[in-house]
Amino acid sequence: MQFFKVKTVEETFALIEEKIPATEAAEVRELDRALHYILAEPVTAKENVPGFDRSTVDGYAVRAKDTYGSSESMPGFLTLAGEVKMGEVPTDEVSSGKAVYVPTGGMLPAGSDSVIMIEHCEDLDGLLNTYKQVAPGENIIRAGEDIREGEVLLEKGVKLRPQELGALASLGITHVTVYRKLTVGYLSSGDEIVPYHTEKLLAGQIRDINYLTIAGLASEWNVDVIYGGIVKDDFAEFQARARELYEQTDCLILSGGSSVGAKDYTTDVIQSLGEPGVFVHGISIKPGKPTILAMADGKPVIGLPGHPASAMIIFRLFGERILRRLSGEQLERKPERIFAKITKNIPSSMGRSDYIRVRLFENAGEWWAEPIIGKSGLITTLVKSDGIVEISSEKEGISQGESVPVIASR
Amino acid sequence: MQFFKVKTVEETFALIEEKIPATEAAEVRELDRALHYILAEPVTAKENVPGFDRSTVDGYAVRAKDTYGSSESMPGFLTLAGEVKMGEVPTDEVSSGKAVYVPTGGMLPAGSDSVIMIEHCEDLDGLLNTYKQVAPGENIIRAGEDIREGEVLLEKGVKLRPQELGALASLGITHVTVYRKLTVGYLSSGDEIVPYHTEKLLAGQIRDINYLTIAGLASEWNVDVIYGGIVKDDFAEFQARARELYEQTDCLILSGGSSVGAKDYTTDVIQSLGEPGVFVHGISIKPGKPTILAMADGKPVIGLPGHPASAMIIFRLFGERILRRLSGEQLERKPERIFAKITKNIPSSMGRSDYIRVRLFENAGEWWAEPIIGKSGLITTLVKSDGIVEISSEKEGISQGESVPVIASR
Repeated sequence: MQFFKVKTVEETFALIEEKIPATEAAEVRELDRALHYILAEPVTAKENVPGFDRSTVDGYAVRAKDTYGSSESMPGFLTLAGEVKMGEVPTDEVSSGKAVYVPTGGMLPAGSDSVIMIEHCEDLDGLLNTYKQVAPGENIIRAGEDIREGEVLLEKGVKLRPQELGALASLGITHVTVYRKLTVGYLSSGDEIVPYHTEKLLAGQIRDINYLTIAGLASEWNVDVIYGGIVKDDFAEFQARARELYEQTDCLILSGGSSVGAKDYTTDVIQSLGEPGVFVHGISIKPGKPTILAMADGKPVIGLPGHPASAMIIFRLFGERILRRLSGEQLERKPERIFAKITKNIPSSMGRSDYIRVRLFENAGEWWAEPIIGKSGLITTLVKSDGIVEISSEKEGISQGESVPVIASR
Repeated sequence: MQFFKVKTVEETFALIEEKIPATEAAEVRELDRALHYILAEPVTAKENVPGFDRSTVDGYAVRAKDTYGSSESMPGFLTLAGEVKMGEVPTDEVSSGKAVYVPTGGMLPAGSDSVIMIEHCEDLDGLLNTYKQVAPGENIIRAGEDIREGEVLLEKGVKLRPQELGALASLGITHVTVYRKLTVGYLSSGDEIVPYHTEKLLAGQIRDINYLTIAGLASEWNVDVIYGGIVKDDFAEFQARARELYEQTDCLILSGGSSVGAKDYTTDVIQSLGEPGVFVHGISIKPGKPTILAMADGKPVIGLPGHPASAMIIFRLFGERILRRLSGEQLERKPERIFAKITKNIPSSMGRSDYIRVRLFENAGEWWAEPIIGKSGLITTLVKSDGIVEISSEKEGISQGESVPVIASR
């Protein structure tokens, strides 16, 4: 694989955009089980929300012009002409000089154009003193003001947050067509890797901890993970196990084995899975340089570096982007990054993107990022961190007090 | 309940800190099923991580001083004295003038103090040319450098993110003692409220959409929700249903009925559930003023305003704080707020906290927040938003270009 040139982070993101297709497999889900799923088709409103003019306060439905001039010192006078019951059609009308009591959410009676709040009136045995004037439309929501019949409420590719579920429910929608949840397969490789539940390590062995961090991140992104276990450095076995997992999943993740060590079968295994194969072999990034990205017969394959912190940062950066594209999500709403000021100078090399683990703290209405010192092999550097600061490849480092983008942990 | 004075947002948060206890119910969970749970006891490391000195690169284990002076133009020369196999104890020693090949993650052979990267050497039939000098400790991780035996790795009250799971796995820990997942009960009230799956609304009816938004938020916070349905404005029935749900859950949420309308039984129902009862009845906040908070026999009860957007904002602000305290979480890691510049002037009243829904966009390395216009009854204002801007009670509004805190959607 000598002919692969190391890619910059920017080139890698561009290649992901170019190579990774959106999933097309959709399913119908009940609305209350669709949180964080992605809409596979647009939703058009079949009715108005609300369906009728409503009061937004407890008060009296009136004709606005009947209140003009009312004030604390010069109250207006109206005659009480009934009461609206919640959930019922008003039986009383509001004509000139009349007022009808209406509770919050109640339907506006015919003839009224506004509601005066109960706090601004006094009911003197059927004679209503008004101490404030209201404008037409005040304290009411018009039929269709929230959602108008025929409008496209949500576009295809939108992720369903709690508020999108609420808006769909307001239309009486009980089922939605969404892209089905993705499943990724995770396979570790390496003669030194043993299951994390191994009680006593032999000399030279280390536990497979990347599965926990990678599966944890995937789960935060609403993706299921199948654990393929650990495979020894044996090409035939590695290939067979990778193929088996690949067949069951939407995306295959291989951990370890992607350094330039003598026992590196990862690239060959990936190339054997399908066409067109590897499109990124090495990224100009620190940590995480020995990263491999491939497309094999329509499924992405990710070869992660073995160091725990590197693996997690690479998966957070490129894995999430790949899975997000694969998921069919088209609208990025959530700020993926915040901005913080860095507490000290950090040198970096032009042409390489650096990701620095940081602790975040707030000071005088600003976020500050304090670098955490430690090698990329150390999982505890991530435990101590709240996020990672990006030093892009065009920069030769960042200076104390400079505002920098931070990818925050969830 | 006339004797309750409306509280400021700051007073409300202080009362929550004072009144809401941490849960004490713990359980033992398998590590790979413990994501986002809260540690109920500290974890002390029973061994070093890594357990042995390791190489962080593919290279040659050497004595650093044997490489001093090596450069591209003046290479040094060492004799190759073997190879370390992954997962095995090295059989070869490094004495003066010798080098032993070691792959990334491999155990350091006795006698060596550093590793020179393979890229900086040339193997000429057993004679190794070194083109760079290394310092003692370079390219290695020492035993215990990540986690030291006997140290407290994680404190009680820490939320288990993917990286915490990884760190625990690195110690071979398979089970953790965590606080059990919280369950909240949700009950809607109001004669006008009908189940959201009601196909055809009668005049004056509206669908129960707050359940979807509140349950969605709770689910994002790793909390289960039991839906208690909708109860009509009837005190006895309301009280019975609330009591039944209260008995099954850790926290009860009542939606609707908390305005000052004539049919407001919510306060009485809450007071009937247990001592000491209501401690917040009305908050000086927009939207969401008619919010009720109570403690009934050790369980929090939240009376949400009925407007969908108000209910969601109030639950996001105070419900999350209450559930977080109840959950036993003691360390807030995640930035709950980001800072953004506001695109236009927004007036506000002193003494009242305002929460403005905003769309966020990035411009020249800064976040900007654009207010979304719309009444608090409109769920679509939340659908269009990426977060809410806080105008604290000490401010008389915010000015265009001012940096303001934003609570971002997830």
